[in-house]
Amino acid sequence: MKNVSSYENARKRAEALVSKMTVEEAASQLRYDSPAVERLGIPAYNWWNEALHGLARNGISTVFPQAIALAATFDVNEVFEVADITSTETRAKYNAFSKLDDRDIYKGLTMWAPNINIFRDPRWGRGQETYGEDPFLTATLGKAYVKGLQGEGDIMKTAACAKHFAVHSGPEGVRHEFDARISDFDLEDTYLYAFEELIKDADVEGVMGAYNRVNGEPACASEFLMGKLHDWGFAGYFVSDCWAINDFHTHHMVTSNAVESAAMALNAGCDVNCGCCYVNLLAALEQGLVTEEKIREAAVHLFTTRIKLGMLDDSTPFDDIPYSVVACDEHKQKAYDAAAKAMVMLENNGILPLDKEKIKTIAVIGPTANSVAVLDGNYNGTSDSYHTFLGGIQESFDGRVLYSEGCHLFKDKVSVLAQNDDRLSEAYTVASLSDAVVLCLGLDASIEGEEGDTGNEFASGDKPSLKLPESQIRLIECVKKAGKPIIAVVAAGSAINTENKFDALIHAWYSGSEGGRALADIIFGKVSPSGKLPVTFYEDSDKLPEFTDYSMAGRTYRYIKDNENVLYPFGFGLTYSGVEVTALEYNDGRAKVSFKNTGKADTQDVIELYIKADDERCNENYHLCGFARVDTSAGKEGKAEISIPEKAFTFVTPEGIRVKGDRFTIYASTHQPDSLSCKLNGTEFVSVSVQI
Amino acid sequence: MKNVSSYENARKRAEALVSKMTVEEAASQLRYDSPAVERLGIPAYNWWNEALHGLARNGISTVFPQAIALAATFDVNEVFEVADITSTETRAKYNAFSKLDDRDIYKGLTMWAPNINIFRDPRWGRGQETYGEDPFLTATLGKAYVKGLQGEGDIMKTAACAKHFAVHSGPEGVRHEFDARISDFDLEDTYLYAFEELIKDADVEGVMGAYNRVNGEPACASEFLMGKLHDWGFAGYFVSDCWAINDFHTHHMVTSNAVESAAMALNAGCDVNCGCCYVNLLAALEQGLVTEEKIREAAVHLFTTRIKLGMLDDSTPFDDIPYSVVACDEHKQKAYDAAAKAMVMLENNGILPLDKEKIKTIAVIGPTANSVAVLDGNYNGTSDSYHTFLGGIQESFDGRVLYSEGCHLFKDKVSVLAQNDDRLSEAYTVASLSDAVVLCLGLDASIEGEEGDTGNEFASGDKPSLKLPESQIRLIECVKKAGKPIIAVVAAGSAINTENKFDALIHAWYSGSEGGRALADIIFGKVSPSGKLPVTFYEDSDKLPEFTDYSMAGRTYRYIKDNENVLYPFGFGLTYSGVEVTALEYNDGRAKVSFKNTGKADTQDVIELYIKADDERCNENYHLCGFARVDTSAGKEGKAEISIPEKAFTFVTPEGIRVKGDRFTIYASTHQPDSLSCKLNGTEFVSVSVQI
Repeated sequence: MKNVSSYENARKRAEALVSKMTVEEAASQLRYDSPAVERLGIPAYNWWNEALHGLARNGISTVFPQAIALAATFDVNEVFEVADITSTETRAKYNAFSKLDDRDIYKGLTMWAPNINIFRDPRWGRGQETYGEDPFLTATLGKAYVKGLQGEGDIMKTAACAKHFAVHSGPEGVRHEFDARISDFDLEDTYLYAFEELIKDADVEGVMGAYNRVNGEPACASEFLMGKLHDWGFAGYFVSDCWAINDFHTHHMVTSNAVESAAMALNAGCDVNCGCCYVNLLAALEQGLVTEEKIREAAVHLFTTRIKLGMLDDSTPFDDIPYSVVACDEHKQKAYDAAAKAMVMLENNGILPLDKEKIKTIAVIGPTANSVAVLDGNYNGTSDSYHTFLGGIQESFDGRVLYSEGCHLFKDKVSVLAQNDDRLSEAYTVASLSDAVVLCLGLDASIEGEEGDTGNEFASGDKPSLKLPESQIRLIECVKKAGKPIIAVVAAGSAINTENKFDALIHAWYSGSEGGRALADIIFGKVSPSGKLPVTFYEDSDKLPEFTDYSMAGRTYRYIKDNENVLYPFGFGLTYSGVEVTALEYNDGRAKVSFKNTGKADTQDVIELYIKADDERCNENYHLCGFARVDTSAGKEGKAEISIPEKAFTFVTPEGIRVKGDRFTIYASTHQPDSLSCKLNGTEFVSVSVQI
Repeated sequence: MKNVSSYENARKRAEALVSKMTVEEAASQLRYDSPAVERLGIPAYNWWNEALHGLARNGISTVFPQAIALAATFDVNEVFEVADITSTETRAKYNAFSKLDDRDIYKGLTMWAPNINIFRDPRWGRGQETYGEDPFLTATLGKAYVKGLQGEGDIMKTAACAKHFAVHSGPEGVRHEFDARISDFDLEDTYLYAFEELIKDADVEGVMGAYNRVNGEPACASEFLMGKLHDWGFAGYFVSDCWAINDFHTHHMVTSNAVESAAMALNAGCDVNCGCCYVNLLAALEQGLVTEEKIREAAVHLFTTRIKLGMLDDSTPFDDIPYSVVACDEHKQKAYDAAAKAMVMLENNGILPLDKEKIKTIAVIGPTANSVAVLDGNYNGTSDSYHTFLGGIQESFDGRVLYSEGCHLFKDKVSVLAQNDDRLSEAYTVASLSDAVVLCLGLDASIEGEEGDTGNEFASGDKPSLKLPESQIRLIECVKKAGKPIIAVVAAGSAINTENKFDALIHAWYSGSEGGRALADIIFGKVSPSGKLPVTFYEDSDKLPEFTDYSMAGRTYRYIKDNENVLYPFGFGLTYSGVEVTALEYNDGRAKVSFKNTGKADTQDVIELYIKADDERCNENYHLCGFARVDTSAGKEGKAEISIPEKAFTFVTPEGIRVKGDRFTIYASTHQPDSLSCKLNGTEFVSVSVQI
């Protein structure tokens, strides 16, 4: 663990401070909205702040692409820089607002990000908040995000928080009472991997417990999970998910009242309560359900974090960050870069990039074309300048742009009194008059998101299926009748099966304030698309295991048995060129990869390394063990060195024990080494056997 | 009446057509959503379309400033051109959509605009739809709008409709049961004037009845009002306001059921029913409450209109209007022109125009700054490119623009879980860092609009007072503390008393898709503001007569007794220069005005002529009788000839009889000839006595 001395120093200061408090004062500090202790010079503090993709819910900030889109960049540096900027803007606003003694929610330095849950099932509404289905990718990008938020100095820039610990991925509708039953194998091979990595290798300062139970225990008070944190050497603070402790007695029924729930959480090691249950801690103390020591120990944890953040010092190295950095042009440019790297081109018959010389009129059609919501995703900030898909195309294209909303995102009509499909005439008309159609489809946080969020009309934020809403299916049929080339753009935080062939198909995710600029630059060939899927795109969610089944068998590229239900594989994404891996060597933790851009365009691409243990006890197809985003020039060769962690040379036995292996195969390509990926990409893979 | 022969021809064709119908078929054509009569080759037709400021509710169109803003231009040509473009876009979409046999609501050629009700009380939510408080201004601009929509040819381009006939101006909350009691004097001098003018002088094709009763009779079935239409020679179609006929038995209680209500309306002369009550016409026929002749006569009226629109011809002169005109750049430029002419500068201590050389950072603050809703107003279309106030300033200014929403439009906080006023820290911070603040305040259609509209939270769309919402009052206080120059911008459809002094104050109305560009060009001095108030801005609505009192006594500049309750007078508006009328002559229906631009900027301004009968029976202060928008150059003189209609030389006796007068005084200035207006404008007026 780095910064041991600064941690010990902070802990000592925290102990001294808490020792001066009455037990009532100490208990009050365990609330997320902890009040001031004026006699000790401690200001009020609200622990709740959000930053999945930029500082969220605190007025204006840079709005980066949603976390799932950041994952699609397969770019560790990009993710680090996004987090670093997020942290900078958070400090800038904290500096300004705390001077005004504004200690309100979303204005502190404890960011409840990243979300490193495994996106196990494509129906989960909050999958957009994660880095996808792969534990290695999740851990690698999660660590970069933590390091970007927390910085490297003795004083933490902001505190990251790994959530939701653990085994949490829907369904949203039952999250408050659900019990995720899970094998030792899946825990070790999938669900705990990234948490362990973030704690051991990135010193993540916070961990948030999940709503659900895990094998019978509520995650926010699980002896088993808390034991894992202890084993990994976790020394930060633990926070409950919001109002999760109330679920103990209202939904999980493991306690009989709020006093017992508060006691159960505190005794298990939950330091701070997002919610209101810890107002009962003093009653619990009176009833002998908790000890004063437990209350003081939790307060010490929390003040250790606050002291590490410099919150009780007269000055910190971050005090000079000026407000003017907030949403400045340089930060927006980074949001643009991330969006351009994140969009995944899934189909292209050659229509893209569009030839501006030949195309005089473009029809931009669809309910996501001029939508800010599809740029925002959820847990978002607010930009002072959004570039929608339509706006980006208008800015980039000198010819005529004709626009139609085409249909409501999911309702049958736009005007209340109209007949169904009241914008199809307009959509068809503008399509007919165009040389090419950019058809903007997808979802937004009103139908893909979190339980309890305003406006979620479908399945508490989860998707009922992988299909687009019916209104959009009818729009597609109508626009196709116009007979013009169609570039479909899908904004969503997850896999979508459009059930249609288009001349080109771009999966744009929720792409942040600059999403439209990035899309336009891709469409017109100013940049080549280079994003890769961080999740498998399935044909049909009905062919997957039940949504409530947390076993990984038959899920994700690591465990599916064949490609029958796969539409586009994990790791897949086209560019305007073709990059082929030509050679692979492995030595001493490093893979040396040679590659060639065999096409006619300069492009970035991602070299993906997969590994499989040659051992019959290994239950996995293979898994990602390294990756690197590379710049390539048309017709030119290049080389990359990619480190592979030692842990890649282990595997988990069916009993859930991680063991070292002795023979492995490593595969290198710009995609997965399966036949579907090779066919879709038009390139093969190179492999090498390694004996440990 | 113009086009007598084409009217007679159309009526004959309509009679012949209706004579071929069964009575059931004829009755079906009296519904606003009239079905096809296939055996006669008559397609379905939906009579309901909207166009107060551009084609509304039919997908993409050019969004012009709201009607009240068009009135503030005091520019007959501008209003004509806006209507002409609206009509062109309506035809373009009609051409495209009717080819696809899409006959849905908002897609026809019968536009239910303009709204020429007198904006009697500043609390009325729908006052924004009107041309203000003055009958002459309303009639003059209303006629221009009608002519712009209908065109001059034998085939009408689109059909205008004068609404809501008559004596209709809130309160919205009681409109379905309200009985407006009104004197003969006010009817003649105020409420009927514009309707008579539009019928006699602009051949408006349609008239829509109001919801309320007028002196006991429901307006959609009033013998008195229908008699007026007959007296004026109205030969078009009469439509009920939507679901107004149902009010007869459900709210007004003048009939006992829907059959009786339908019969009452038809017998009075209501040709088409917006609503569903006329499905009972056949029952009414069976019960002997209506005659077949009445049904057929109404159908003849309706088919006369459809034939005049060329809807039953194989071709019309408008068939070649291409879809590409819709929301084209040229039309958007007209929306920009209208917005630039409409904005009224109410205060300026010299801060405006801002000096770009001296101002490095601008803070744009407030809930209307980046709002599309404040550009749209109500009864709006949808633009494919909105320029918000923030966006306009960002586009025009090379320095740093810092933005904060500042507060919710009317709620106490932006984030649900936050403390009240959760954006004030941000607002204060950006204000403090700026060289000047553009503070964007006001309302939108969610709190100023129509009864029954989604989201109206206050008084069914009416304003409870002239004050800004409390959240904005607190924002103003907070921003003022930063001590920077403040340019306040108020977006609203009516009078607002901000209760604060600012360095400058611009009343921007609901300014259409180009509103932000226009505002920025005014702020930076690319154009001089030149809009004039079409309504009196009062200090306090509580000092006005009761909202339910329809007497004009004590209301509007024509009848108020002193300026005690006047904040800014009707006709008032500053420019970046000063334009003084230097001489006035009157001869033969024409006023010759000399004026001089005494300031340092080129500007447009409005020469306003007021007239007063020198007769003790004349009850009015004076009234507008002519106006002209003029271009002026700094330091230069100019001349204008303004026609004054014959009717200006009449007045209405206290008994409600319009009589000719013999001695009049005419006043000319760029404002009203009262002392407050002179003081606020810094210029005097010139007057001349006229003996008839």
